[in-house]
Amino acid sequence: LPEIAYVNGEFLPLDRAVVHVEDRGFQFGDAVYEVVRTYSGKPFAVEEHLARLLRSMEAIELEHDLTVDGLKILVSEAVRRARFPEAVVYLQITRGHAPRHRGFPSPCKPTVVLTVRELMPLSSELRENGIAVITLPDNRWARCDIKSVALLANVLAYHAAKNDGAHDAIFLEADGAVTEATAGNVFVLTGGRLRTPPKSPKILAGVTREKILETARTVGIDAAEGRVTKTDLLKAEEIFLTSTTAEVVPVVSVDRQPVGDGKPGPMAGRVYEQFVRMFAKA
Amino acid sequence: LPEIAYVNGEFLPLDRAVVHVEDRGFQFGDAVYEVVRTYSGKPFAVEEHLARLLRSMEAIELEHDLTVDGLKILVSEAVRRARFPEAVVYLQITRGHAPRHRGFPSPCKPTVVLTVRELMPLSSELRENGIAVITLPDNRWARCDIKSVALLANVLAYHAAKNDGAHDAIFLEADGAVTEATAGNVFVLTGGRLRTPPKSPKILAGVTREKILETARTVGIDAAEGRVTKTDLLKAEEIFLTSTTAEVVPVVSVDRQPVGDGKPGPMAGRVYEQFVRMFAKA
Repeated sequence: LPEIAYVNGEFLPLDRAVVHVEDRGFQFGDAVYEVVRTYSGKPFAVEEHLARLLRSMEAIELEHDLTVDGLKILVSEAVRRARFPEAVVYLQITRGHAPRHRGFPSPCKPTVVLTVRELMPLSSELRENGIAVITLPDNRWARCDIKSVALLANVLAYHAAKNDGAHDAIFLEADGAVTEATAGNVFVLTGGRLRTPPKSPKILAGVTREKILETARTVGIDAAEGRVTKTDLLKAEEIFLTSTTAEVVPVVSVDRQPVGDGKPGPMAGRVYEQFVRMFAKA
Repeated sequence: LPEIAYVNGEFLPLDRAVVHVEDRGFQFGDAVYEVVRTYSGKPFAVEEHLARLLRSMEAIELEHDLTVDGLKILVSEAVRRARFPEAVVYLQITRGHAPRHRGFPSPCKPTVVLTVRELMPLSSELRENGIAVITLPDNRWARCDIKSVALLANVLAYHAAKNDGAHDAIFLEADGAVTEATAGNVFVLTGGRLRTPPKSPKILAGVTREKILETARTVGIDAAEGRVTKTDLLKAEEIFLTSTTAEVVPVVSVDRQPVGDGKPGPMAGRVYEQFVRMFAKA
């Protein structure tokens, strides 16, 4: 089963999929993206992901004639062709290629790139034992609500966490407010209440984040958006991260301080089980 | 004279120059770059540019075996092959291509891309009449001292300026401090003193910026690094921007307020003439 890709109208083997060196995605980070996964071979929450992709394009004023319906067919076709048991579809739209200049090219013909790889689920070891995280100042740009490929700050923060013996980093604003992890949203349980930082220009409105809020409320958990600070992290009963591919990941330490008793708590497991029941079953 | 490019060891026509869709420069902005121009066909300040490129790579912990000497030969060879009267060389190094994951790939084989285009000098109209700028909150990431391709904020700010009838934007910190324009450093003349914001994590140590400080001092101008605020912009006798390709660009209005008498002042011209005399003559 070779990995496949799609570039501007053509499916081809992933190893032959290329873009021009003057593509604005390559030279300016002038591009947005989505990651969609399958459950039982079916793209999950694909309309939410594609609607967000269109919102991201609108936010950076990227002119295009793409539609949710058209992209939905593309994603399905890609998954069908790749024939993995479970797949991760990566979809990136750039402002096209043009002689290098920071001004928008006119006319603009967007570059559409898609790749399909086999889904590698979170290891059962990480899901069962949880992960260590460190906190770092949020040094990203001010528009993290746009899912752009300007991810160097995330790459460097993740690397710093690894270097420090941890598995991920949580970003903090100067006033101590939690924004996000390097590739996921943050949920914190304190006093029996589950909170995740409210939507803002520093926070991506995660699809899984939304589903987890819905999941938790379905089983009667007090779950809502609410400001979370570093102090909240340090006194939390539980913390977990959510994302499309990792789903729900328990955090067992923050800056080397154990969370609760230093083991994954029952809330993460309960939310995850219910999430699987509601969304991840065929 | 076709434009040429170089990708990982091979010179080829620019229109055939491509990188893999899973290049980290394309998917993560995980890449750094330099722009070098020629004067009289000779690459200008190429050692300063290449030394900064190596510093940028070090800052993002990009493993490589490149050297200033090796890259210098590459730039010269590219300029020689392209045979333009004056050329702009764009050089970008990425953390290579690998299955998409925010963690550094290991081993890492960097992607080296270079393009050569004919230099289009700043129009004499703009140099003689100056440009209008607007100010915008600096919403870029916190490490603008690294010359990375994470330039989406710059692209959007430049577009906002154009939309507003101006030619560029100057970024302001929350406290009013000037950082940079969207592709150049800012110089301000107040009380006969020429100032440019001091190096910091929000400011690229511009090669032209450095040369202009040197130029100005050579002709006895009081020129130094110093904090510049929006208030300074609004009461300035003169403002100009500096960059490799545009050199010295007079600013004649800020947020629709005229600078001085609303025409390019004598200082910008004097500095530019001396700069040409010292650096841009064969």
